[in-house]
Amino acid sequence: MILDKVNIPDDVKKLTFDEMKSLAGEIRELIIKKVNTTGGHMAPNLGVVEATIAMHYVFNSPVDKFVFDVSHQCYPHKILTGRKEGFTDPDKYNVYTGYTAPEESEHDLFKVGHTSTSVSLACGVAKARDLKGENGNVLALIGDGSLSGGEALEGLDNAASMDSNIIIIVNDNDMSIAENHGGLYDNLKLLRETDGKAECNFFKSLGFDYYYVNEGNNVEKLVETFEKVKDSNHPVVVHIRTVKGCGLEVAEQNKEAFHWIMPGTLDENKEPVEFVENYTSLTRQYILDKTKVDKTVIAVNAGTPGVFGFDKEFRNTLGRQYTDVGIAEEHAVAYSSALAKCGAKPIFAVMSSFIQRAYDQLSQDFAINNAPATILVFGGGISGTDVTHLNIFDIPLISNIPNIVYLSPTTKEEYLAMLDWSVEQDKYPVAIRVPSGDVVSTGQKDNTDYSDLNKFKVAHRGQKVAIIAAGNFFKLGEETQKEIKDKLGVDATLINPVYLTGVDTALLEDLKKNHDIVITLEDGCLDGGFGEKITRFYSTSDVKVLNYGAKKEFTDRVPLDELYQRYRLKKELITEDVKKLL
Amino acid sequence: MILDKVNIPDDVKKLTFDEMKSLAGEIRELIIKKVNTTGGHMAPNLGVVEATIAMHYVFNSPVDKFVFDVSHQCYPHKILTGRKEGFTDPDKYNVYTGYTAPEESEHDLFKVGHTSTSVSLACGVAKARDLKGENGNVLALIGDGSLSGGEALEGLDNAASMDSNIIIIVNDNDMSIAENHGGLYDNLKLLRETDGKAECNFFKSLGFDYYYVNEGNNVEKLVETFEKVKDSNHPVVVHIRTVKGCGLEVAEQNKEAFHWIMPGTLDENKEPVEFVENYTSLTRQYILDKTKVDKTVIAVNAGTPGVFGFDKEFRNTLGRQYTDVGIAEEHAVAYSSALAKCGAKPIFAVMSSFIQRAYDQLSQDFAINNAPATILVFGGGISGTDVTHLNIFDIPLISNIPNIVYLSPTTKEEYLAMLDWSVEQDKYPVAIRVPSGDVVSTGQKDNTDYSDLNKFKVAHRGQKVAIIAAGNFFKLGEETQKEIKDKLGVDATLINPVYLTGVDTALLEDLKKNHDIVITLEDGCLDGGFGEKITRFYSTSDVKVLNYGAKKEFTDRVPLDELYQRYRLKKELITEDVKKLL
Repeated sequence: MILDKVNIPDDVKKLTFDEMKSLAGEIRELIIKKVNTTGGHMAPNLGVVEATIAMHYVFNSPVDKFVFDVSHQCYPHKILTGRKEGFTDPDKYNVYTGYTAPEESEHDLFKVGHTSTSVSLACGVAKARDLKGENGNVLALIGDGSLSGGEALEGLDNAASMDSNIIIIVNDNDMSIAENHGGLYDNLKLLRETDGKAECNFFKSLGFDYYYVNEGNNVEKLVETFEKVKDSNHPVVVHIRTVKGCGLEVAEQNKEAFHWIMPGTLDENKEPVEFVENYTSLTRQYILDKTKVDKTVIAVNAGTPGVFGFDKEFRNTLGRQYTDVGIAEEHAVAYSSALAKCGAKPIFAVMSSFIQRAYDQLSQDFAINNAPATILVFGGGISGTDVTHLNIFDIPLISNIPNIVYLSPTTKEEYLAMLDWSVEQDKYPVAIRVPSGDVVSTGQKDNTDYSDLNKFKVAHRGQKVAIIAAGNFFKLGEETQKEIKDKLGVDATLINPVYLTGVDTALLEDLKKNHDIVITLEDGCLDGGFGEKITRFYSTSDVKVLNYGAKKEFTDRVPLDELYQRYRLKKELITEDVKKLL
Repeated sequence: MILDKVNIPDDVKKLTFDEMKSLAGEIRELIIKKVNTTGGHMAPNLGVVEATIAMHYVFNSPVDKFVFDVSHQCYPHKILTGRKEGFTDPDKYNVYTGYTAPEESEHDLFKVGHTSTSVSLACGVAKARDLKGENGNVLALIGDGSLSGGEALEGLDNAASMDSNIIIIVNDNDMSIAENHGGLYDNLKLLRETDGKAECNFFKSLGFDYYYVNEGNNVEKLVETFEKVKDSNHPVVVHIRTVKGCGLEVAEQNKEAFHWIMPGTLDENKEPVEFVENYTSLTRQYILDKTKVDKTVIAVNAGTPGVFGFDKEFRNTLGRQYTDVGIAEEHAVAYSSALAKCGAKPIFAVMSSFIQRAYDQLSQDFAINNAPATILVFGGGISGTDVTHLNIFDIPLISNIPNIVYLSPTTKEEYLAMLDWSVEQDKYPVAIRVPSGDVVSTGQKDNTDYSDLNKFKVAHRGQKVAIIAAGNFFKLGEETQKEIKDKLGVDATLINPVYLTGVDTALLEDLKKNHDIVITLEDGCLDGGFGEKITRFYSTSDVKVLNYGAKKEFTDRVPLDELYQRYRLKKELITEDVKKLL
């Protein structure tokens, strides 16, 4: 194994091209085995194996600085910078994160997980170098769909006008997470087809010195070009054409499916996955049915259709009633707002973590304009995920913007009724926090008129204690109601608040009569969240309020159960707290 | 007067070119007179008089749809669409807003005040037209610096790949609000210099059909080109070269100063403005002094240097220790974060309303990475301004992101001490809410160590009632303390919380001993704000909490005093409320 003698980047520099070629094969094999075991980003990492080897061969990290966009393409880099045990030893598969992490290595500069940040970060790294009178190269490795994000484009515009070394490697694999969208990608195609020679060149138009490497999975070709741009005294773009999923045939053929895979995806004879109805499939079916009968309904998403079940069949069926804007959440919100203002019925599906990228558009284009678009926020809730992909901030983000109606369904029937109400109404900017986890069904059609804003639903009327349990945590509310009855003999009231953007003042006022304690449960960050609105309502009364949700903190791959324990999100713990107050 | 016979857009279509030329002169005169009386956006509107006339001559609003970027260049449009009385009659100068407003006219599609939204909105308008099977042209008028914003670039990328009519008019006046920055503007320059013929063309690289009009203040030339692109079945860019401030010599010579002017700026013999120290001048001087002694300190801003006193002299003095990224707040936050992580000391100055454009960068690049950059948030507070420029959401936005330390100074000495602490420390991502209004000085140097996070300052220790008064409202806290003493005979405790991102649990716990009521005062939106954190702390205790701040609502040019009354932000009203609870 060549890899046996490669422990630090300097070891790469001693290799011949033939050895580097072998090394690429070894790294690829490790990544395939590891990712198939743990799950994770497969195709993006396979595409940049050679580029990463060539970067470490030509440049001197950490004196030269590498910034990885999204950083889900950093596995080869981790292997070459002292962390190969995380890929060779199955017992250590989970020691290192799937993203760059400065606490792991001096070769990682930033924690990065959202796309399109690398060029801006690299500009800052380069400028700090210049201010401190230091030397060295600064590289950003961007691509794989990240280019279309506003932050990347702002970064490119600024990078181009720097007057010192900054090298942007554009990893062009002809893909976003799904297929590419937007004029920029047509230009990349033209450049690929002309071997980089077309005069009409996006990067040159911004003022970059431009290099093209057609064989982006050939170490020798990459090294040749990287050596030319090394120590450049001005901004350079190196456009490299790579194959997403390179070296794993099934991934090369199914780039979208292999962007991120579940454990065991490559295993033979694995059980076929049985279809289980979930909130994604319910959404998909609703949109398919609705678009068929109403030609003004349109599904919008920002570069991650797979997450929402917007597969190829779905896209083909919807045709012009479907827009994937690429990774461009700001555009998606403004576009949907305008569609709604002009009488169409857009449904924009987005992950909780990524709606963060469009706060100003939510406020200005969507809310101020009272655009009756529908935004479906998926995945919201506390989880054991990576720090860059937490989904606990959408309630503080959205629920404090005026005008927006943020709905929090607790069952399938409620969700579908809200979704249809939102699509058909023309007064309010509506967001719906799509439930996570297993589908809960009442079996009964929901006929609520959600225009009756901030009207909470009383699921059970009791006394002394009232539990206001939102969305995903309504189930915890039910369990807690039972636990309090069993352990404390108190028949607590149980309420589904439905709305995360306001309070039912009449109901809350009424509760004062025969309730001493109100409990709020929300599957998100407590600070700035829904519960605080309830607390504020009771702030001058004798009612005591217990707020449950996530603490304001960044957690990084902390197991969910540990977080529930930490935040006392368990029926027994809540009941203990109630007991102390009774 | 030609304008006498122009009441609706159709009237424009009946004019000869000579008449339109006269009309342009008349409109220009009205704008100059009105804006000099009321204050407002002068130069941007003077630049687009001819373009607006030509748009109404060639196209048929409201069947054809116009979207104005920033919409501070919509005055000529307002004059031509039934609202000229707002410019001819001084009594009606304030009837119409300074931005497009759908409630005023069917010719205005959106409320717009933040930049860079028009292309995305136009995409939505065009797509809605197509889905509904309608016809007509959709135009976006962008420019004046807006192009560099991420949302605009995402929009252009997507607009270029639409398969139907969308016309983007790029108003190129060679200016942002200040001078332009970024590679994109170099390309505009190249295109101007080559009469639009350069092969290296940003817009063509994205796939747009491209037209250039060198005389963008010549109605005839504009009409000629607009007629060519009218009813285009594909995306088109019309690049027009205009003169910002056109027709007002002093504005043409001082484009930056005349972007937005104060009332009376053009008046002769007006009293010279006497210099009064303010928080802007204090900031400017601090940065001038600091950059001189520390070459790693760097001032950053996003296209609005004038607001912060970063005038030409300041910029020249700072040289490479100054970066204006153009209108690109996302880039500014990421860039500053990286600068700080790499050992430089960035100070990014930004308005409260515009920091909204960078939530995800605050969370990901700044907070998760614990980048010890300094962000100065100017203008935060309740005001009588336009709905698109409210500055009340920065506390909910910033204070619920983990890791960030958001400081709220109450005096000059505190502000300067915090600023210097922030610049010199290397542990925390820090934002400072720069006070608004007159400078308050204690005359004593502040030696607080702000590393002692969330340590509130007790200004006066009393009993029964405690007033926690943040930032701008510390003064109101002092007044209320006195009023409560005078009217209720209660010697209330007065606290300056200093930090908007956390609570001083030891102090708050201690207050329980001899306080029944806690009052919070903050100059911003209550929902998700600072006061709710205090309320949550006391939610299970007997302490009653009264929260004061702005209601969660969009207000549009509501006089400040009316808002203070509405929100009970007056010492007498607060004292009344306290009396009821005592």
